[in-house]
Amino acid sequence: MHEAFTDVHRRDWDTDAEGEIRLAVVGCGGFARGVVLPSIEACAYLTATVGVSGSASNREASADYGLATTDYDGYADGELVDRYDAVYVATPNRLHLPHVETAATQGKAVISEKPLDATSDRAEQAVTACESAGVPLMTAYRMQTDPLFRRLREFLDDGGIGTVTRLAGDFTFPVLAGSRGPDQWRLDRELAGGGALVDVGVYLLNTTRFLLGEEPDSVSGHTRTSGPFSDVDEHVDFRAVFDDAVGNFSASFSGHPTAEYTIYGTDGTVRIDDAFQPNRDRRLVVETADAQYELDGAGGDELREEFDYFAHAVLTGRAIEPDGADGLADVRLIEQVYESA
Amino acid sequence: MHEAFTDVHRRDWDTDAEGEIRLAVVGCGGFARGVVLPSIEACAYLTATVGVSGSASNREASADYGLATTDYDGYADGELVDRYDAVYVATPNRLHLPHVETAATQGKAVISEKPLDATSDRAEQAVTACESAGVPLMTAYRMQTDPLFRRLREFLDDGGIGTVTRLAGDFTFPVLAGSRGPDQWRLDRELAGGGALVDVGVYLLNTTRFLLGEEPDSVSGHTRTSGPFSDVDEHVDFRAVFDDAVGNFSASFSGHPTAEYTIYGTDGTVRIDDAFQPNRDRRLVVETADAQYELDGAGGDELREEFDYFAHAVLTGRAIEPDGADGLADVRLIEQVYESA
Repeated sequence: MHEAFTDVHRRDWDTDAEGEIRLAVVGCGGFARGVVLPSIEACAYLTATVGVSGSASNREASADYGLATTDYDGYADGELVDRYDAVYVATPNRLHLPHVETAATQGKAVISEKPLDATSDRAEQAVTACESAGVPLMTAYRMQTDPLFRRLREFLDDGGIGTVTRLAGDFTFPVLAGSRGPDQWRLDRELAGGGALVDVGVYLLNTTRFLLGEEPDSVSGHTRTSGPFSDVDEHVDFRAVFDDAVGNFSASFSGHPTAEYTIYGTDGTVRIDDAFQPNRDRRLVVETADAQYELDGAGGDELREEFDYFAHAVLTGRAIEPDGADGLADVRLIEQVYESA
Repeated sequence: MHEAFTDVHRRDWDTDAEGEIRLAVVGCGGFARGVVLPSIEACAYLTATVGVSGSASNREASADYGLATTDYDGYADGELVDRYDAVYVATPNRLHLPHVETAATQGKAVISEKPLDATSDRAEQAVTACESAGVPLMTAYRMQTDPLFRRLREFLDDGGIGTVTRLAGDFTFPVLAGSRGPDQWRLDRELAGGGALVDVGVYLLNTTRFLLGEEPDSVSGHTRTSGPFSDVDEHVDFRAVFDDAVGNFSASFSGHPTAEYTIYGTDGTVRIDDAFQPNRDRRLVVETADAQYELDGAGGDELREEFDYFAHAVLTGRAIEPDGADGLADVRLIEQVYESA
């Protein structure tokens, strides 16, 4: 096994910093409450102290985590501004910008859900607002702080499979499964900025940019839709052309859930099963001419990793890798895929 | 496990026919001698009796299999015409047509290696020649007679994973590995008709058409090349759009050898490892909401299956699935991918 994988859960960015920051969660929907808040409880550098929601029941549910709560007007008015140092924006995509701008005005560091906003114009305004205010902005890309993907980048950088020539992957999230049904913002083009590409396809795009450390020369794609998805792409098939590598990807809002990612190199391949779901044990299979090995159960609490990474960067003033510019680049690429489709 | 997979090696086409046909092998190169002739020795309905080659050493090596041999002029002149009932054309792609025409003139059934020829015009002439002469023509697609893929088609037809919405796959054949080096016809655009797409990418295309039982509405692609491959595509990334499904595929002449194929449906997925190499044990993984199971070691002597299928069809007069029209359709699609690239 390559040495990159011997200590998978290593926090290569962690300097054992002092202190802890207090976080306001703006948009206390299912993902924020069900997935993020439980992980934040395990964070070393971060405590959630404030919850902002337009829904009284969501505010109540957030109070169960010990959060002081307010609504969006209260947040915009700075009602609880002394109780937090940073803001996590987890509203529908098209609403990110005003909340990021509020945080910037308040001088708070920001971590915004992906995509940064529903259009590149708005995403750019979010970046500019944080730059002007001199506050850090992180785009909440889970894979960039997932320890397994950080080890994978080290492995690839070390030539683990030679030159990467192709990548392939699929991320299918059956968005109508569960309790949400068709009446949700993810199926609203205006609010979401798009469908499967925006919500799940972006993982393939961003992870590939992260692993290769390189921007695509071009992207293109093909979209399909039907029934309740008619406003957005139900399926997207897209290609990203890099210097030495081409990625052929698909993503979907319907079908059997999958999240697979394969990297083809001149000297070997890496396949990851269960690659993109939050907080899931992942299976990584490396095959080269000399060796074949598997890492089963790699992964872990990646939301804890993501938020601790963010808080650590805020505490230490270190640069954030998945910053606002990174998030903006993906929104621009998403628009290019849609234009070509 | 779905009942389609309970008897994987079943020959659904076999009627226990009487008799045996005698085969002339036209083009006794490495694949014909190293892979095909050993498999033919195990065939029930076929005996190889004649070998045709322009190379004295290849003729000698073929004689070791008990073949009477001649050169291409001897074949064209009908020198050994009474010693065979059918012809297997295994020359470089661009030379298929004249040998198919000779066989048709001689009233012999034909099995031609894929692609049917280097251009669709020539492939069409080959089809016409056999139709006019009233002789059967089979394109030598291994996957269509591979028992595992025939079972897989039954499984899909039975709705094993619901509606197929996406397919993905890669076939990488490092053509410079081994003894051949860069001086070979597969790297000569004129002789081969193209590179990785023609030689290995066609497996993904044809297998998908076979499994879906449907022609793509459109195909498009992207090609890359370097160094010794400059005359043809070293890598190809291509997309085939069907009614309900889209396939995102890649194929390559360089890199770590792989052959993977995944089918995504509304109710499950099927992945096949080692999907396309000749005579290789394949691993099939089925995942649905209710079940997950693997077929390890499925596969077998698929060249024997291919040639027995052909001979059985010739003996019984039954229709051939991978016929000339099927081979011609792929050559046309290949040209469309190249045009778009």
